[in-house]
Amino acid sequence: MTSNAYARLEKRFHRMGTLSEAAGMLHWDMAAVMPEGGHESRAEQLATLNVISHELLTAAETADLLAEAQDHGLDDWQRANLKEMRRVHGHATALTPDFVEASTKARAACEKTWREARPKGDFKLVLPQLQTVLDLTREAAAAKSAKLGLSPYDALMDEFEPGARAADITPIFDDYAAFLPEFLGRVLEHQKRQPAIVEPKGPFSIETQKKLGEKLMGVIGFDFNHGRLDTSLHPFCGGTPDDVRITTRYNEAQFADAMMGVVHETGHAMYERGLPASWRRQPVGQARGMALHESQSLIIEMQAARSPAFCRFLSPLLNATYAGNEAAFTPENLARFYTRVEPGFIRVSADEVTYPAHVILRYRLEQALIGGDLKLVDLPGAWNEGMQQLLGLTVTNDREGCLQDIHWFDGAFGYFPCYSLGAMTAAQFFAAATAAEPGIPAAIEQGDFRPLIGWLRTHVHARASSLSSPDIIKAATGRPLDAGIFRQHLARRYLGTA
Amino acid sequence: MTSNAYARLEKRFHRMGTLSEAAGMLHWDMAAVMPEGGHESRAEQLATLNVISHELLTAAETADLLAEAQDHGLDDWQRANLKEMRRVHGHATALTPDFVEASTKARAACEKTWREARPKGDFKLVLPQLQTVLDLTREAAAAKSAKLGLSPYDALMDEFEPGARAADITPIFDDYAAFLPEFLGRVLEHQKRQPAIVEPKGPFSIETQKKLGEKLMGVIGFDFNHGRLDTSLHPFCGGTPDDVRITTRYNEAQFADAMMGVVHETGHAMYERGLPASWRRQPVGQARGMALHESQSLIIEMQAARSPAFCRFLSPLLNATYAGNEAAFTPENLARFYTRVEPGFIRVSADEVTYPAHVILRYRLEQALIGGDLKLVDLPGAWNEGMQQLLGLTVTNDREGCLQDIHWFDGAFGYFPCYSLGAMTAAQFFAAATAAEPGIPAAIEQGDFRPLIGWLRTHVHARASSLSSPDIIKAATGRPLDAGIFRQHLARRYLGTA
Repeated sequence: MTSNAYARLEKRFHRMGTLSEAAGMLHWDMAAVMPEGGHESRAEQLATLNVISHELLTAAETADLLAEAQDHGLDDWQRANLKEMRRVHGHATALTPDFVEASTKARAACEKTWREARPKGDFKLVLPQLQTVLDLTREAAAAKSAKLGLSPYDALMDEFEPGARAADITPIFDDYAAFLPEFLGRVLEHQKRQPAIVEPKGPFSIETQKKLGEKLMGVIGFDFNHGRLDTSLHPFCGGTPDDVRITTRYNEAQFADAMMGVVHETGHAMYERGLPASWRRQPVGQARGMALHESQSLIIEMQAARSPAFCRFLSPLLNATYAGNEAAFTPENLARFYTRVEPGFIRVSADEVTYPAHVILRYRLEQALIGGDLKLVDLPGAWNEGMQQLLGLTVTNDREGCLQDIHWFDGAFGYFPCYSLGAMTAAQFFAAATAAEPGIPAAIEQGDFRPLIGWLRTHVHARASSLSSPDIIKAATGRPLDAGIFRQHLARRYLGTA
Repeated sequence: MTSNAYARLEKRFHRMGTLSEAAGMLHWDMAAVMPEGGHESRAEQLATLNVISHELLTAAETADLLAEAQDHGLDDWQRANLKEMRRVHGHATALTPDFVEASTKARAACEKTWREARPKGDFKLVLPQLQTVLDLTREAAAAKSAKLGLSPYDALMDEFEPGARAADITPIFDDYAAFLPEFLGRVLEHQKRQPAIVEPKGPFSIETQKKLGEKLMGVIGFDFNHGRLDTSLHPFCGGTPDDVRITTRYNEAQFADAMMGVVHETGHAMYERGLPASWRRQPVGQARGMALHESQSLIIEMQAARSPAFCRFLSPLLNATYAGNEAAFTPENLARFYTRVEPGFIRVSADEVTYPAHVILRYRLEQALIGGDLKLVDLPGAWNEGMQQLLGLTVTNDREGCLQDIHWFDGAFGYFPCYSLGAMTAAQFFAAATAAEPGIPAAIEQGDFRPLIGWLRTHVHARASSLSSPDIIKAATGRPLDAGIFRQHLARRYLGTA
């Protein structure tokens, strides 16, 4: 009877997983090709898929089967699958359908006002709606906290990165915040002593940029039989593991951002594509969490593609693609160009060294907001104070401050830490991979990503959600997440220490 | 309570309609942009959407609500909607899920073998699997016949074109078959006396062809805020009424087929787009049937775009698009080029005059197959005999005979008549429209389709499935389908009679 309950759960979750794949394709379509006038009916289609999936998940029969199913007689992956089913079920049933509906509406309304408030730098305009979103999020956090046995903030993070806990993250982030000011000063000093960066001169036709992007995707190992590159306003990796759709956006005046954007999304794509085919559409077969996902894009972008080795590979390729930029396309100039450090107000434009400061600021503030220790009316002040402290910058307009990111206005509290956990995890994976396969940097210099991807396939991709992120990191690298490895990577790259 | 049952039915059917929209988008994606390797997971996604929809339709609750709902208290459209719900439900519940599954598998297997058999012209290779498909189709026809109170063949046709009945169609087709031989001889004689057709000379770049296609779509009235033009192996019109996706395929050596293909699909698109927004996703809000749909593509392609008036509009546009083809692009040559009559073996390449002969042949043969009067082993002989009789052509290879179309091998019996019913209906609509709005031809000559589309909007599109096709034709034109109008159109166009 037990295995029967489990088998029936697999069938139910397979259906939900398939609906989620369908929704993934429709999301891609909406962002990449859908005409404007299709929005209303698309929203209807996505909502319907979502509601059907949610009904399946929260149906009494699912709860009964989960209560009936036992680990006994299941193999490791089946047990892990059952555990994931319970986790997903716990998140879904912590909130009533009425609450979810109210919350969805509040987020949509707040996000809409935020789109008006941001360009004006008018935080007060969106404050009342953000207050509603925050109140609802705190209510959700409390409900999930009770259901999952986690602190309210951990319960929020757990939805994005299962297993992420403030108790582990806070010391790592505090260390980095303490390390940064002096280190950043040394990096900027060191940078000043380097030759000036030569900027590539355009225009760069979009057609050529697209071909270059596809060429690099091929170099990294993207399988065009199972995916595509397209264009969208906000680059992303979507679709399904068997049909991975990545997007970028182009600017004729410069190719560098679109190119590195494609490389970044290809890292995400390789993860999706490397998930075990035999566990497709089951909870255990999905990518682990957003932090681990980000580690896979950043290991390709930051660890591999911004390395001197890859710049040596890139140099002749760029010269063959865009004539007349020889000085800009020397390997040394490319490396300097792609690792320029420049403290600024905007997270999405930040370099590798200062990026964590942006995340730490948000991490601290959202904990205070969820914990009730910071009032929303005081958010701009607290934000600006934090920027001063972490990066020494004086914010003069909330447009460049607490209004810059969509996340909170869309109700996504607990997401931000994933970005920097991803960067730190990427450094640790790369160090472990090159220790195990010392030929990786030389291969990257030849445009051969197979040794690196091979290691990731085995140690990360193929594990899907069979382990927690901390356990995947430990199994792959022999120790828990250690931010020291990230700092060593930065010191090597930005100070030239061995 | 009655209206409550109806309201609950609307909600259920709305969900099915939304799932069908989602499936429509995924079908478009599969044909237009999906990489090869996505097939397996896409099949899974489409099957899941289909199964969920089918479960909703055949659930006991749906049957109970349909039994409970009464016309009393409903307005005309609601009553028509309830009637359509019952029709759709009747079709779906006539067959058991096990039967549907067996049938789906048999069709897929047969279609696969057909793809191998066709190029070889080897009918025997696919005969056993086609026999299975035919047996299952006859079983389905018998079951639907009992459930719907129609003859077995009518029950099959009813799925494609609700209300289509052999008793109405047979005399129309018989008349045409009798009329054709002598008429065709006169047309070919008349054609011989015309100046020789000058062929446009390429190559014609695909980019320019696409722009020309989009230009003509705009001329016809296609709203690019609610749709797109893309490329696929087999041109079609898909997507949803709010996001109509049409496709074509290009050949650099000649632009004429792709261009007219776009015009044809735009006719389908205008129908979808013109369906009443307030009845979206309800059965009554859908396009009526395949014959009426074909009438909408053919009124744009055959009645409007191949007319001398439109050729006069096209002439300067083509000269501006493709220089050096002035002799080919005179209005007179264009009209001759686009109305060339040439009896041949292949239905999809047939001209307007001989096309019905291809359909009549298939109509007669499939009735005999379903009725048990023709054995499959005798199909090639019967086919070839029919081609001799109808068009005077001697088939020497089944590749050009009974193996040419996918329909039967995919289990689609009862579909073929729609093509010619559509052509005849288009002629009748066009005659009625120009009688009501005598300015239509002059407007078309100016590239202004608004008068024609305006008439179609009111008399066809906006009626959706609120009436049967025969009733739509009667309401729009004042009389039942009259093939004499089609014959008059042919005589005018191909013999130059007034």
